[in-house]
Amino acid sequence: MSGTDTDFPVADASGSAIPADLASLESEVRSYSRAWPAVFRSASGSRLRTDTGDSYLDFFAGAGSLNYGHNNPVLKRALLEYLDADGITHGLDMMTSAKADFLRAFQAKVLDPRGLDHKVQFTGPTGTNAVEAALKLARKVTGRHAVAAFTHAFHGMSLGSLAVTAGPKQAGAGIPVGHTLRLPYDGFGTSGGSGLDLFEELLKDCGSGVEVPAAVIVETVQGEGGVNVASVDWLQRLASLCERWEMLLILDDVQTGCGRTGHFFSFESAGIRPDLVCLSKSISGYGLPMALLLLRPQFDVWKPGEHNGTFRGNNPAFVTATAALANYWADSTLTEATERNSHRIGEFLDRIARAHPEFGLRSRGRGLMWGIAFDRPDLARLISRESFARGLVIETSGAQSQVLKILPPLTITEAELDEGLGVIGDAIDKLAAF
Amino acid sequence: MSGTDTDFPVADASGSAIPADLASLESEVRSYSRAWPAVFRSASGSRLRTDTGDSYLDFFAGAGSLNYGHNNPVLKRALLEYLDADGITHGLDMMTSAKADFLRAFQAKVLDPRGLDHKVQFTGPTGTNAVEAALKLARKVTGRHAVAAFTHAFHGMSLGSLAVTAGPKQAGAGIPVGHTLRLPYDGFGTSGGSGLDLFEELLKDCGSGVEVPAAVIVETVQGEGGVNVASVDWLQRLASLCERWEMLLILDDVQTGCGRTGHFFSFESAGIRPDLVCLSKSISGYGLPMALLLLRPQFDVWKPGEHNGTFRGNNPAFVTATAALANYWADSTLTEATERNSHRIGEFLDRIARAHPEFGLRSRGRGLMWGIAFDRPDLARLISRESFARGLVIETSGAQSQVLKILPPLTITEAELDEGLGVIGDAIDKLAAF
Amino acid sequence: MSGTDTDFPVADASGSAIPADLASLESEVRSYSRAWPAVFRSASGSRLRTDTGDSYLDFFAGAGSLNYGHNNPVLKRALLEYLDADGITHGLDMMTSAKADFLRAFQAKVLDPRGLDHKVQFTGPTGTNAVEAALKLARKVTGRHAVAAFTHAFHGMSLGSLAVTAGPKQAGAGIPVGHTLRLPYDGFGTSGGSGLDLFEELLKDCGSGVEVPAAVIVETVQGEGGVNVASVDWLQRLASLCERWEMLLILDDVQTGCGRTGHFFSFESAGIRPDLVCLSKSISGYGLPMALLLLRPQFDVWKPGEHNGTFRGNNPAFVTATAALANYWADSTLTEATERNSHRIGEFLDRIARAHPEFGLRSRGRGLMWGIAFDRPDLARLISRESFARGLVIETSGAQSQVLKILPPLTITEAELDEGLGVIGDAIDKLAAF
Amino acid sequence: MSGTDTDFPVADASGSAIPADLASLESEVRSYSRAWPAVFRSASGSRLRTDTGDSYLDFFAGAGSLNYGHNNPVLKRALLEYLDADGITHGLDMMTSAKADFLRAFQAKVLDPRGLDHKVQFTGPTGTNAVEAALKLARKVTGRHAVAAFTHAFHGMSLGSLAVTAGPKQAGAGIPVGHTLRLPYDGFGTSGGSGLDLFEELLKDCGSGVEVPAAVIVETVQGEGGVNVASVDWLQRLASLCERWEMLLILDDVQTGCGRTGHFFSFESAGIRPDLVCLSKSISGYGLPMALLLLRPQFDVWKPGEHNGTFRGNNPAFVTATAALANYWADSTLTEATERNSHRIGEFLDRIARAHPEFGLRSRGRGLMWGIAFDRPDLARLISRESFARGLVIETSGAQSQVLKILPPLTITEAELDEGLGVIGDAIDKLAAF
Repeated sequence: MSGTDTDFPVADASGSAIPADLASLESEVRSYSRAWPAVFRSASGSRLRTDTGDSYLDFFAGAGSLNYGHNNPVLKRALLEYLDADGITHGLDMMTSAKADFLRAFQAKVLDPRGLDHKVQFTGPTGTNAVEAALKLARKVTGRHAVAAFTHAFHGMSLGSLAVTAGPKQAGAGIPVGHTLRLPYDGFGTSGGSGLDLFEELLKDCGSGVEVPAAVIVETVQGEGGVNVASVDWLQRLASLCERWEMLLILDDVQTGCGRTGHFFSFESAGIRPDLVCLSKSISGYGLPMALLLLRPQFDVWKPGEHNGTFRGNNPAFVTATAALANYWADSTLTEATERNSHRIGEFLDRIARAHPEFGLRSRGRGLMWGIAFDRPDLARLISRESFARGLVIETSGAQSQVLKILPPLTITEAELDEGLGVIGDAIDKLAAF
Repeated sequence: MSGTDTDFPVADASGSAIPADLASLESEVRSYSRAWPAVFRSASGSRLRTDTGDSYLDFFAGAGSLNYGHNNPVLKRALLEYLDADGITHGLDMMTSAKADFLRAFQAKVLDPRGLDHKVQFTGPTGTNAVEAALKLARKVTGRHAVAAFTHAFHGMSLGSLAVTAGPKQAGAGIPVGHTLRLPYDGFGTSGGSGLDLFEELLKDCGSGVEVPAAVIVETVQGEGGVNVASVDWLQRLASLCERWEMLLILDDVQTGCGRTGHFFSFESAGIRPDLVCLSKSISGYGLPMALLLLRPQFDVWKPGEHNGTFRGNNPAFVTATAALANYWADSTLTEATERNSHRIGEFLDRIARAHPEFGLRSRGRGLMWGIAFDRPDLARLISRESFARGLVIETSGAQSQVLKILPPLTITEAELDEGLGVIGDAIDKLAAF
Repeated sequence: MSGTDTDFPVADASGSAIPADLASLESEVRSYSRAWPAVFRSASGSRLRTDTGDSYLDFFAGAGSLNYGHNNPVLKRALLEYLDADGITHGLDMMTSAKADFLRAFQAKVLDPRGLDHKVQFTGPTGTNAVEAALKLARKVTGRHAVAAFTHAFHGMSLGSLAVTAGPKQAGAGIPVGHTLRLPYDGFGTSGGSGLDLFEELLKDCGSGVEVPAAVIVETVQGEGGVNVASVDWLQRLASLCERWEMLLILDDVQTGCGRTGHFFSFESAGIRPDLVCLSKSISGYGLPMALLLLRPQFDVWKPGEHNGTFRGNNPAFVTATAALANYWADSTLTEATERNSHRIGEFLDRIARAHPEFGLRSRGRGLMWGIAFDRPDLARLISRESFARGLVIETSGAQSQVLKILPPLTITEAELDEGLGVIGDAIDKLAAF
Repeated sequence: MSGTDTDFPVADASGSAIPADLASLESEVRSYSRAWPAVFRSASGSRLRTDTGDSYLDFFAGAGSLNYGHNNPVLKRALLEYLDADGITHGLDMMTSAKADFLRAFQAKVLDPRGLDHKVQFTGPTGTNAVEAALKLARKVTGRHAVAAFTHAFHGMSLGSLAVTAGPKQAGAGIPVGHTLRLPYDGFGTSGGSGLDLFEELLKDCGSGVEVPAAVIVETVQGEGGVNVASVDWLQRLASLCERWEMLLILDDVQTGCGRTGHFFSFESAGIRPDLVCLSKSISGYGLPMALLLLRPQFDVWKPGEHNGTFRGNNPAFVTATAALANYWADSTLTEATERNSHRIGEFLDRIARAHPEFGLRSRGRGLMWGIAFDRPDLARLISRESFARGLVIETSGAQSQVLKILPPLTITEAELDEGLGVIGDAIDKLAAF
C-alpha cells in the first residue's frame, strides 16, 4: 500500500463534469463542487440525481441539514400548500401564523416534554448567526469579555464565531481575534483529560492571570473538528463547573441537534441543561435556512431589536419545521431507529478496523454521526473520492481532513445504510490492495 | 401641537393582537411584532393580510427584501414547479442546475450589459455574511487591518459587520470592536463635505497616525442610518480616492441594490465600479434568504472553503432569483416605473413639508427609498403608529428613529402608492391638529 | 544646489570616532551615537567635551532634559552634599526627606502661584510611564476605552503610549494597537483647522459611530512631530470641548514643560487648566530620570499601588529638582530670558528664510523650542551633519526628519546662542552654494 | 490564635509619622509609605535611618534594587568622582566614556566568562521598559503576535508588560489587553506540572486553536507572585520547548538577576541560554534607574531608534554599575556568601515552620530571595507590620499578600541576618500567642 493523492487510481466518476463557464463565474472559494464534480438536479430521500441522470447515495445530508432526507414528502406537502395559499414568505420578526404554529409546536413537542423553559430567539437563518447572538448575550448578561472554547471547535465563519473556532480557518479573519480562552476538549492529547481541572484551578486563583469568562461554548460531538465525541461524564463536569462559576454554558447543537445523535438535543443523554442552545441546519427539516437560539428566561435581557437581521424569520422554514416536529417528534420512533442504525455503523467500523490494522483506523460516533480517523491525512480524502466514483457522497473532516465522516439522513433505510457502508468497505479494500 | 408618544391618541388598530403565549415564548429581542401587533397570515403584491382578515398596504417591503411584491406570481410559479419536481433544496456549494441557471442569468442580465466582469461568491444567505466575506477578503488582498466606514452606516450585526456599523447598536457587541476608521458621510454635519479631503490628507502624511486602510465600505443611500443620500459627485470622489490609495471599495448594496434606487445597482448612476459588491435582501426576489458577493477577478484570492457556511447555496432562492432576472431585468420597464414613482413621492413630500412648516420636515430619497426627517425624534414613530392604525405598514429609521422611511415594493401601482401617501398625509394632518 | 545625503561634502568631524568593539557590543537600535560619532566624556553649561578633548556647543539639551544646562553648579552642589551624607538613593514610594522637600517646593514654587490644586503622582522615571499612568487613570475615571490623540503626536514607546503616538514608530508595536481616535492637530493640512468642529459634531450625533473618548491627550508644541505649535485659541477651544464632553484633558508637557516654552508649564499662556499633566525630562533639572503626573484631586481615584514601578521615587532626582525650583522658579528671570532668546531665534530664522527662498523654509517655535522645516526631507539632516562637523550638536525631527530642531539649554548665553545660530547659517549657506 | 488585621496589637512604631501636608499632596496611589509610615533620611549598608533618628534593618533592599546595600562606599566613591568631574549626566544613547567603560566591564566580567555573546540594548531605565522592548523585538523577529506568560507572573505596569503580568493588577489597564497565552507556572495547582506537556500538544496540533507564540516570557523565581521557585528541570524543559518551536525565550531577570539568587544570572544554575534577558533593579548597584536588554546577535534586528526613550542611557548609573562589576563579579566571593546565607535562612524557616504547625507555613527560596506563605492571607501582613514596629523593614508578596518576602542586601552580615530573622521569629511567636 503506497497510495497517495496523486497516483491512486480513483474509479471514473460517471457524473457530469461542471461546465467551464460556471467554474469561471463562481469564486475560487467554492469547495464541494470540486470534491463532487457533478451538476445535481434533484433529490429525494437519501438519493441525489445529477442532470445527466446519475444517482448518488447520500452519506452527507447537507452537512447535517437534511436529517429527514431530501424533499421529505410530508414536509413538502406542507410547504407547497403554504406557498400556494400565498402564505407570508418574508416578515422579518413580525408575528405570523407560520411562526405562531412553529412556536407552539416547538413548545409542545420539544421544550415541554423535556422540562425546558427556554425562550426562543429567531436569529439570522444561519448557525453562525445564532452563535453570534449567544456570544453577545453571554457578554451582556455577565459584563465579561472572554469566552472559553475548545480545541478543534467549529462555530462558524463570521468574526465573532470565528474567534471561538479553532484551527487554521481562524487565520482567515485577517485581523487578530481575541477574547477567547482555549481549553483542551475531552480526550485532547494525553493531558486533555485533566483540562477542566486545570481550568478550575486557574479560576480559583485570583493571581492566575485567567479571569472568569462570560461563557463556555461547546459541541457535544465536534463534527468539523473530526467527529470528536465528548463523554457524558465530561459534559456533566463542564456543566457543573459553569454553574459553579456563573459562566453561561452555550451548547452549539447546530450539527448535533434535531435528532442527529439520537435524542432531539445532543445533550439530553448527559442530563445537563445548557443556558443557551444554538440550533440551525436541520431545524427547518427541509434544508431551508433557519436558526434559533434557546435561552433560559433569566438571561433574556435583550432590548427589542438589539440583535436583528433581515431574514431572522424565514416563514417557509417555519412551515416545514412545524411539519417535521409533528411527524417525527411526537414519539420515540426516530430516536430508536437512529440508535439501531448507529449500532450498525459502529459494528461495521469495528470490523473494518480489525480487517485493516495497516491503516491504524480509529472510529467513534454517536447516533448517525460517525468518523473513521486515518493516521495518514491523505487516506480519508482518497476514500471519499473513490466512494464518489462508486456512487456515494461522503465527506472528510478534521483539521487535516484525516477523518472520513459518515452523516446519512436519519430517515435512511437499513438497506441504503448497508449499501453505503459496503461502498466504503470496498474503497478501503481497494486502497489496501494498492 | 404637543403630542408625545404617550398621549397622542392613535386610532385603534383593527388588527388582531398577539396572543400572550406567543409573546412569552419569543425572546424580548423581537421588535417589529411590537410595532405592528398583529398575526399576519398571507400576502400578495403590496398587501398583507392578518389571521383576522384585516388587510394592510405595505410601504416596508420586508425592509427591502420584497422589491417584486409578496408572492409575485411569476416567481411563485417557478418555485412551485421546482419544489414539485424534487429539485435540490439544500446543496451547500455543490453545483446544481438551479445554481447554474442563476449564474448564467446573472451574467446575461446583470453583469454583461453593464460591462462588469465580477465573479460571484455565494456567502451565507444574509447581508451581514456577505459583508463579513468582503471584509475578510479585503484584508487578505491588502494585508492591512483597518477598514474605513462612515457615520450612520449599517452593515449588519455579526461581529465583523458590527465593527463597521455606526451608532448605538455597536455597543451590543459586548466587547470593544476595532480596526475601523470612521469617516463623515456625505452631508454629515457642517464639516462633512470636506471629510474625503481630510481623509486623503491623513493618508498622504506618513506621520499622521492614520494608515491606509484595507478598504472603504459604503452605502449609496444609508437606509438604516436615516435615508441619507450620497451625491454622485461624492461617490465618484470616493471611488477615485480608493483607486489612488489601493483601498478596495466595498459597495454594500444589500438594501439599495436590485432596482431599489432605479437601476439594478445603486452605483450605476455614479458611473463607478466597486471592487466588491454585497447583495442580499431582494436578490432572491421572493423574500427567501440569499446573499452574494461580487468580486473583481483580480481579488478572487480565496482558497477553497476559506469562507464557508451551511446555507451558502439556497437553491429555491436561486430559482426565484432567476425568474426575477428574466422577468424584470431584460429591459428598462421596471427602472422607468421606479423613477416615475420616485418623482411622485418626491413631489408629495415637498407638498407635505410646505404644508407643515411647524415640523421642520426634510425629505430625501432615490428610487423607491425615501425618508422624511422630523426635528423631534418621537414624531416619526407616532406617524408610523397612526399609519398602521389606518392600514399602512411603514417603519422609521435613523439613530433616534426620527425618520419616516417609505419603502414600497417596486411593483406597487400608482393607485396603491397614492393610497399610502394619503394615509401618511392624513396622519401628519392629525398630528398637526393635535 | 543639488546636494543629497550621499554627495554633499560634510566637513570633517574632528570628534573621535567610536571604537569598533563598542559598536559591536551595543544593539543596532542605537541612534544618536550614529548621528554624532564621538565619545563624550564631560559637559558643563551649554558645552559637551569628547574624550579626545573636542568641544561642542549644545543645541539639543538632552532632548529637553537639560533645561538648566549640563552639570549646573547649583544643582551639582546639592546633589554632591546629599550623596556624601548617605541620603536615600532608592526608596520606591516610601516617604523620604528628599521627597518631602521636593513636594513642598513644588507646591510653593509651582502649584500655589498658579492657583493649581493638582496632586502629585510619582510614576516610573520616564515620560512614557507618566503617560501610561495618565491613560490608565483617565480610563478608570470615565469607564471608557478610547483616547483621542493628534496627528504627529509623540507620547512614548511603551505600548500604551505608543497607541496614542502617531506615525511610523507605532508599527514597531508588533501588534495592532487600538482604542485611539486620531484627530488633526492645529494647522494640519488644509482641513485641520476645522478638526475640532468635526470632532464635536461626531460626539453630538449618537449615530456617528464615534463614542465619547475617556480623554484627549495633547502636546502644546509637538517636538518630535516637527515642532508644530498649537495656537492659544485652538488650545482654549480644545480645553472647553473636553470640559463640555467630560473627557479628561491630558497635557503631555514632558518636553514642553519646565520652562521650555517660557513659563513653567507650556499651557499657562493659554490660560487653560488640564486635568492631568505629564512632566519628565527637565523636572530633575540635572538629567536624572524622573517623571510625575499631576492630577486634579477629584480624579485621584487610584487604589494604593495600582500603578507602581521600582524607580518611581528617584531620590537624587528629587534633590536636584528641589534645587532647580528654588533657584530658577522663585521669580520670572528665567522666563524673561527665554522670551528674549526666543525672539532672537525667531528673527534669525526669518532672515535665513528670506535669504534662501530656494529652500522654502518655514520656521515656527515657542520659547527655546524652534523648528525650521525644509521642503526636501534630506536637507535638515545634511544641515545637522554639517553643523556637527562645525562643532554644534543639533538634531532633526518630524516624520521624515525634515525639520531642524533648535533646543538649547534655557541657561544658554546670548553669545553662545549667536554662535550656534551662526553655525546653522553657515551650514545653510554652504548647502545653498553646493 | 484569632488575630486579624484590625485587632492584633502591633507594637508601637517608633518611626516618625508622615506629616499631613505631604500625605495630601501625594496621590492616593502611594503604597510603601503607608506600610512604613516614617520619613527616611539616610541609609548605609543594611540600615535605614529616619529623620527622627530611628534605625531600621532592611530586609527589602529596594525590592531588589540594592543588592550591594545602601550607599555602598565603593560605588559611592566612583559616583562622587564622576559627578565632581562634570561627567556626562544625560546623553540619551550618545556614546560616552561612562557607557564605554560599562560595556567593556559587562563583557569582561559577565558575558565572556559565561560564554554568552549577547548584545546590549539600553532601554528606558525601568524593568518594564526592558520588557516592552523584549516583547516588541520578539514580535518583530517572528512576525507573530501572541506571547506566552505564566500564572502569577509580574513583568511591569506599562501596557505591554501588563498584558503578560498575571492577576488583579492587569485590570488596571482600563482596556482589555490581549495577545497573551497564559500557562501554568511550575508547581501551579495540581495540574501545573504537566502544563508544558499540554502546551506542546496544543502547538503540535494544527487544529488546536493555539498558534505558536512569538515568545515565552518567564521569571525563574516569581518575586511579586509570591516567591514561587521554578525547578531546574522545568526551566530546561521550557528552554528546550522554545528552541523546538522557534519561540524566543525571554528571561525576566529584573528582580532575580545581579546575584540575587547566587550567580549573576538566575538562569545559570539551569544551564540554559535565553534569547533575551531583561535586567534592571540592581544593575546600577546604587539604586539608580537603569535597565538593559540582552539579545542574541541574530535577533538584533532593530532599526536605529526603533525603540527609544529620553533616559535610556543613565550615565551616573553606568558609573556605579561598572564599579559594582569590578568589585563584586571578578570572583565568586559574593556568590558563595549568598549561598551560605541562603542556607541559613532556609534552616531558620524550617525551624519556624516546625515550631508553628498551626500556621501551615510553607517556605521556599533561592539565594537571598525567600518567601514564607501563610494559609490565611492577613497573617503575612500582620507579621510585616509587627516587624516594622520592631525595627525591621520587610514586605509581603503574592496575589493576596499572603507571603512574607525576605529580600536583604546581598552584602548583609551574618549578624544582621540573624538579627532580622530573630525579629521575624519573635513576631510569629507573638502572633501565635495571641
